Amino acid sequence: MSKLAVIALGGNAIIRGDERGTIQQQYKNSSDTIHNLTYLLKEGYNLVLSHGNGPQVGNILLRNDAGEEKYDIPQMPLDICVADSQGGIGYMLEKMLKNILKEEGIDREVVTIVTQVVVSKDDPAFENYTKRVGKLYSKKEADALSERKGWIFKKSPKRADAWRRVVPSPKPIQIMNDQIIKNLVNSGVIVIAAGGGGVPVYYDDEGLLQSLEAVIDKDASSSLLASNINADEFYILTDVPYVYSNFGTPNQEIVELINKEKIQKMIKEGAFGEGNMLPKIEAALRFVEKGGQKSVITEASKLENRKYGTRITLH
Amino acid sequence: MSKLAVIALGGNAIIRGDERGTIQQQYKNSSDTIHNLTYLLKEGYNLVLSHGNGPQVGNILLRNDAGEEKYDIPQMPLDICVADSQGGIGYMLEKMLKNILKEEGIDREVVTIVTQVVVSKDDPAFENYTKRVGKLYSKKEADALSERKGWIFKKSPKRADAWRRVVPSPKPIQIMNDQIIKNLVNSGVIVIAAGGGGVPVYYDDEGLLQSLEAVIDKDASSSLLASNINADEFYILTDVPYVYSNFGTPNQEIVELINKEKIQKMIKEGAFGEGNMLPKIEAALRFVEKGGQKSVITEASKLENRKYGTRITLH
Repeated sequence: MSKLAVIALGGNAIIRGDERGTIQQQYKNSSDTIHNLTYLLKEGYNLVLSHGNGPQVGNILLRNDAGEEKYDIPQMPLDICVADSQGGIGYMLEKMLKNILKEEGIDREVVTIVTQVVVSKDDPAFENYTKRVGKLYSKKEADALSERKGWIFKKSPKRADAWRRVVPSPKPIQIMNDQIIKNLVNSGVIVIAAGGGGVPVYYDDEGLLQSLEAVIDKDASSSLLASNINADEFYILTDVPYVYSNFGTPNQEIVELINKEKIQKMIKEGAFGEGNMLPKIEAALRFVEKGGQKSVITEASKLENRKYGTRITLH
Repeated sequence: MSKLAVIALGGNAIIRGDERGTIQQQYKNSSDTIHNLTYLLKEGYNLVLSHGNGPQVGNILLRNDAGEEKYDIPQMPLDICVADSQGGIGYMLEKMLKNILKEEGIDREVVTIVTQVVVSKDDPAFENYTKRVGKLYSKKEADALSERKGWIFKKSPKRADAWRRVVPSPKPIQIMNDQIIKNLVNSGVIVIAAGGGGVPVYYDDEGLLQSLEAVIDKDASSSLLASNINADEFYILTDVPYVYSNFGTPNQEIVELINKEKIQKMIKEGAFGEGNMLPKIEAALRFVEKGGQKSVITEASKLENRKYGTRITLH
């Protein structure tokens, strides 16, 4: 029986922080990232890829803003923008992956599934909007948009008199079509799914799916998907080769192997701060708590060398 | 064994010609359109839905133009824009369909697959670009874009001194993942695929997939998909209840039943003009030529009444 791994590609897998995100840059980066997965393919792993969409959906939101101003085109809500980004990024990754498989002489199908992710409408995230999206606005612009569209704004931590739209970031509770993904992947098909954390939806009191302007954490959705399809391994690819404790302080240290007990102790000691890494560690831990063999947090380019990366196990 | 039907939804299934295309309008129209499919679902049909994307991808192109001008965001090529539209429209249709199934008490899965469609790089369409996309430009703007991006422009037939970008419209020769779609749909899953005619790609001399700025006719791709998955019936839903011969002339007549022989005769007589209907008739005919039982061209709202619609059979 082949091993099954879920691999969550970070935002920088496609557009790096210092880039404008031209199509040439996006293809180059995707290709580099996916080349790093070759050894898993050669070992016969079954694979699901998920991916971030921060820079892409940010650009889609800005284009919506500009398109309304210049051509009076109605803006699409955030859930449609996320779904759009799943289409574009999924297509790009699928095509690059097919080409790399061809070059390596590996015969595998690749399919991209537009993925809704269900959240609870009672999630406490709806009482404290935390996820910043879109562009910076002046106070006056923010007030006008707030009045016209009901958007909620928070002051930018980086620039005085700059405001940014915030949306809730609720927890994923169901990955739509996870059993279809499971069947496909167990038959050897490589599946690209849950891009950008999934298109957020919730069930109303009649059990009908309703739209939602929110952003679901990509690593949280990927972890849930990995558990639901009984994956063996879960990889979170990011822009550092390891998790560090006390990152950016004189006590900074590489974390190579950690288990649940050690993670809980380190969280209590504040070793991971409140930054981007903590949600990744929590998503990685949740996967092994639900029966996964191991989670790995590392850089894509370090994936081939099994000595790199922070490995998370239950015990 | 359940019957299998492929249903190609026209552009107006989601944004009607006289609408701005707000999200409320798009949901209302999609819901109306999909409600018309209920009787097929109640009869236990297995279904694949494809859809047009003209207004949506047109808006995405305009937003790309505006976003570059206002925020200096790199424009995405047409294939990425088509893939984006597959994500957004597919998500919308999937959600509406799930809700209608719930209301009807029918337990079926729905999955949206981002679909690449392969064309030949030797297609004669690359020598005569015919498909108009994006906005109208002045001669000066068109010349500048032609210089900067290599875009090709043709004069608008509707406005003097207005130019519009044209792209090739090659024939579909392969639907990526059609056998995966076939397996899913034969297991009862409703599949949304080949939106906007598919994301156009071609194989280069090394057998690698390459991008392409083109638009593939949605009905041609849907017909090919229907044949490849051995569908029994193929429906093209458009904005008229019937095909008419000599449309818009004093000799206009409803066409109820036609077969290959009659179609060929009528085409020779010029009964279908050169308008939008001829490619639909050709796509419908191709399906029955390849073994499909019947094709139907009609309005979505007429679908439930089996007396409506133009039915196309081989003999």
